[in-house]
Amino acid sequence: MASSPQNLPYKLYYWPFLQGRGEFVRLILEEANAPYIDVARLPADEGGGKDAVMAFYNWQTQGTPVLAPPVLQTGDQVLSQTASICRFLAERHGLAPDDELERATALSLQLSIADVVAEVHDTHHPLSVRLFYEDQKEAAKERAGHFLKQRLPRFLAYFEAVLERNGDHHLVGQALSYPDLSLFHLIEGLQYAFPNAMSDLRGQCTRVLALATAIKARPRIDAYLRSPRRLPFNLDGIFRHYPELDLVP
Amino acid sequence: MASSPQNLPYKLYYWPFLQGRGEFVRLILEEANAPYIDVARLPADEGGGKDAVMAFYNWQTQGTPVLAPPVLQTGDQVLSQTASICRFLAERHGLAPDDELERATALSLQLSIADVVAEVHDTHHPLSVRLFYEDQKEAAKERAGHFLKQRLPRFLAYFEAVLERNGDHHLVGQALSYPDLSLFHLIEGLQYAFPNAMSDLRGQCTRVLALATAIKARPRIDAYLRSPRRLPFNLDGIFRHYPELDLVP
Repeated sequence: MASSPQNLPYKLYYWPFLQGRGEFVRLILEEANAPYIDVARLPADEGGGKDAVMAFYNWQTQGTPVLAPPVLQTGDQVLSQTASICRFLAERHGLAPDDELERATALSLQLSIADVVAEVHDTHHPLSVRLFYEDQKEAAKERAGHFLKQRLPRFLAYFEAVLERNGDHHLVGQALSYPDLSLFHLIEGLQYAFPNAMSDLRGQCTRVLALATAIKARPRIDAYLRSPRRLPFNLDGIFRHYPELDLVP
Repeated sequence: MASSPQNLPYKLYYWPFLQGRGEFVRLILEEANAPYIDVARLPADEGGGKDAVMAFYNWQTQGTPVLAPPVLQTGDQVLSQTASICRFLAERHGLAPDDELERATALSLQLSIADVVAEVHDTHHPLSVRLFYEDQKEAAKERAGHFLKQRLPRFLAYFEAVLERNGDHHLVGQALSYPDLSLFHLIEGLQYAFPNAMSDLRGQCTRVLALATAIKARPRIDAYLRSPRRLPFNLDGIFRHYPELDLVP
């Protein structure tokens, strides 16, 4: 992408009716103040709608075929996989450390966040992405119970330990980087999906919650969250609030 | 890690009794002919054994805390997350493209392979990593069925499409890179775990199978696979052969 025209806006392709993994990319574009078009949110007669995303599923699009959205396009070059897109954008737009090891560590942290996101997804889809939630509800209850009682406390304690080791305010280095932005969204999503479980754990991840609060107050993030560009949480995304999957208060 | 001593062997920390995600790292180290110590496979009185891996679980080790193994250590610097370790080693040892976009694409492909690996893992552990397989066997049968009938054909077709687009022999660029090595291991693992399903699909992924065959014949990979450094597939790893989860021949 280095050779692509720098003055063109990025094109982001992601489902227009949910935040999903696209949201991690959007937060970087917004914080970087990078011009972008959220293509599928355009009207269909301007090339938008879900067909704009579906086009990547036939592997006839330009560039390396894409397994799944989100997709970032610059000129005629495309890049897929959330963490790879985030790394690419962040290193280009000053939202990643400069040091080689810290850059590698930022990617590792992003991948750890992605691991948690994948487990959150599977709390409501433990058996198949092709089945409706309603058709795997019992397995979902079991998986969500294990997630909330065993996995989530450890995941939050992990990011708390990383912050503590690094001086409390950022996951890596001494400035904002893309895993910080992604951790903010993870926490927002968890609070939406599992308010009771997150309330129980709030005393055990004070640094994580403080970081999320600080990110939310950043001027560009705040403006984005209040804008129509931000889709609300809903029951189509990764983070879903099914009360029956949360802990009993 | 750039500043760490170049003449020290890498230290890899991973469970000593299974290939797991550590195998993707081992294959890069072997193909790169990079000196490394597979620490946990040393005798306990030389610092080996599973305790060498468990030490990372208390977050008191040096450097950024680690969520899960594998861990790569150089000097006093540590890096976790399989894809991040693979990217780091491969870019350093000539097993990644030089071009910026191709490097980003290599990482994306590695992450797509990791997505498949995660789904393979969940075929035998759909409800919780804390439960034994035997205690989630019915859910495992359901998840494995969906995986083998819907997901696996698409995943293999995807990598086939990538190879076709790129001239058949490599996933990205015109030389061997780390996603090629990882795709080889994915295919080996799938053939071990699901021989019937893979046999059914062999006509639909000829380029993928040819790449796997070519990787297996590379001198350093061949020597590694025949060496005691290579752990066999078994029922503790990610790829497990439970005949009841495979398709009926």
